[in-house]
Amino acid sequence: MRTEVCERFGIEFPLFAFSHCRDVVAAVTNAGGFGVLGAVAYTPERLEEELRWIDDHVGGRPYGVDVLVPGRIDKAARGGSGELGGLLAAVPEEHWKFLAELFDKYGVPQPEFDRAARPGARGPGVTERGATELVEVALSHPIRLIASALGPPPPHMVEAARAAGVPVAALVGTAEHARRQVAAGVDLIVAQGGEAGGHTGEISTMVLVPEVVDTVAPIPVLAAGGIATGRQMAAAMALGASGVWCGSVWLTTEEAETPPVVKSKLLAATSRDTVRSRSRTGKPARQLRSAWTEEWDGPDSPGPLGMPLQMVLAEGAMRQITKAAETGNPGARELAGYFVGQCVGLMNSVRPARQVVYDMIEEFADAIERLNALTEG
Amino acid sequence: MRTEVCERFGIEFPLFAFSHCRDVVAAVTNAGGFGVLGAVAYTPERLEEELRWIDDHVGGRPYGVDVLVPGRIDKAARGGSGELGGLLAAVPEEHWKFLAELFDKYGVPQPEFDRAARPGARGPGVTERGATELVEVALSHPIRLIASALGPPPPHMVEAARAAGVPVAALVGTAEHARRQVAAGVDLIVAQGGEAGGHTGEISTMVLVPEVVDTVAPIPVLAAGGIATGRQMAAAMALGASGVWCGSVWLTTEEAETPPVVKSKLLAATSRDTVRSRSRTGKPARQLRSAWTEEWDGPDSPGPLGMPLQMVLAEGAMRQITKAAETGNPGARELAGYFVGQCVGLMNSVRPARQVVYDMIEEFADAIERLNALTEG
Repeated sequence: MRTEVCERFGIEFPLFAFSHCRDVVAAVTNAGGFGVLGAVAYTPERLEEELRWIDDHVGGRPYGVDVLVPGRIDKAARGGSGELGGLLAAVPEEHWKFLAELFDKYGVPQPEFDRAARPGARGPGVTERGATELVEVALSHPIRLIASALGPPPPHMVEAARAAGVPVAALVGTAEHARRQVAAGVDLIVAQGGEAGGHTGEISTMVLVPEVVDTVAPIPVLAAGGIATGRQMAAAMALGASGVWCGSVWLTTEEAETPPVVKSKLLAATSRDTVRSRSRTGKPARQLRSAWTEEWDGPDSPGPLGMPLQMVLAEGAMRQITKAAETGNPGARELAGYFVGQCVGLMNSVRPARQVVYDMIEEFADAIERLNALTEG
Repeated sequence: MRTEVCERFGIEFPLFAFSHCRDVVAAVTNAGGFGVLGAVAYTPERLEEELRWIDDHVGGRPYGVDVLVPGRIDKAARGGSGELGGLLAAVPEEHWKFLAELFDKYGVPQPEFDRAARPGARGPGVTERGATELVEVALSHPIRLIASALGPPPPHMVEAARAAGVPVAALVGTAEHARRQVAAGVDLIVAQGGEAGGHTGEISTMVLVPEVVDTVAPIPVLAAGGIATGRQMAAAMALGASGVWCGSVWLTTEEAETPPVVKSKLLAATSRDTVRSRSRTGKPARQLRSAWTEEWDGPDSPGPLGMPLQMVLAEGAMRQITKAAETGNPGARELAGYFVGQCVGLMNSVRPARQVVYDMIEEFADAIERLNALTEG
């Protein structure tokens, strides 16, 4: 395909792949798409390692990095150092108690929250200071896009990217947010519908994409949310999108580092098995429905904390849950889950990431051909 | 267009228009689409009148009727006669009290609930007996489709339609429901995403349509939910739909009998201004967010009743609210609302229904052309 976005980003097919796994990023980039590494879970040192590995495996082909700069950070965390220890100190006693009882109820060994024991734990990257360090590392590599989830990128991020000649993308869930992002200097908008995995709003892709396209034209818009097949990609482009941004579909690829217990839950799940819940990060995020989401959103819960406190709590707990689930603990299996969109119902087999790209290209072509046959008939 | 659905239903463009307003039904049918009259609010006598009027205005062109056969009717109503008086007697005192306080709080004159004073009030049509009577009236006219919302049509409805040579359509929100509908003998499936107005599930159109298409092939599927423009129609057909089913978009047409106060709220609303709430019918139904939905779903509410009790309560209250709002009562204006999908954000001008059809045809053609330019480029 020779679209404006393909030309601008040096790709053959306007499919952007968001993944926390470097192997997926490299595989999609090498297959003619555009891999974007989700950096929020990494320390600057670890991100440096990952990007060096990607540089060594894509032969100069284009890829990008995604950071998460939260617009409003929980007050308790804002004053702190942004380090995990400081964040943990801000978690109320009531929430520690609920967490301990939850582990008891499901027969899972209690998790340990000791910063020294867990270097690289999620947490730092979601504070403004943490995000800035990640941006610096990212811009020291030959990336071709830097993306920001949750709120407009801070001016220093836009300036640093401009200086490095790197376009800035931003995820939005409403037309109003898209307008603000463009005013903040963003070059590429990802319009993400409420069916998406992870942090998401409530407006569906079908409605959001045309609204955002009309609002920000001529800035190009990628469609995100619920998209895992080539016919959905054709649909997104019929809506006016210049390409698509997919996250969930890579979780069940061969390359994905998704824990086996989570991968098997994802493969078995239908499109009804997700829920938009604050229980994993403190902000509404779509994920697999599990005992974790049901308990935190249930009547006996003290309610999830804000971001990043709930994220720190949940990620520490989830590491323990996943570990226990992998040893066959049935309660841990019930609690285990992960961010995923409603398209999980369409993810029913394990394929190499490269193959997902090729399948989408073929399905896309078929969908266009079918549409043409309808209108010519 | 010469698609299978166009051939089968004798139409030029596979756009099905659901409306409670006979003028919209006739206008769409006369413009080359397929109008479907929503009959749930009508008594059999009134439906007879409406269909006679349509017959006189479409010159033999095809149209259909939609009835609402609830799968599970509220127990309190099931034993009753299905008449409005019997239903009202089953409303708990707590709910009458909440309703009275709500009217006080917003400064709206109290509504009267007296069956004798309000012949033709909503209520009867949503019981099984009521629905059966409507089906009988519908089948005595030259209709080309009978549709059933909420649950598989009862066997006698399918048999009666078959005997009359009329295809049966059903609205579904999940692939599993689509499978059950086909097993019940349905000829045409409407896959309705969670962004739709009215009774709706949670799976978005982008995800639901391909799932349902794959599940029921070769039964044709219409896409519904969020669709108000031709590019969205092209998107739906890229997903594998054989056409679309639109409801919301007709509410702001010239012909629509939407009360002026509601029409102006719809024209001003953005895609963020809807909510899926049980406050209007007892089942989750997407509608304009209003003081009515906020209060019933708020912390001081006794909680909405089941269907059809909440529907009887809400419709009686809404008649009074709309009447007061039209006289300029500001509290009533806050309470006023109506069923509408997220595409309300795309409904920003009043057009004749005929013009909506023509605009969709043109936008559809443009979208296909744009897609072809992308892939040929």
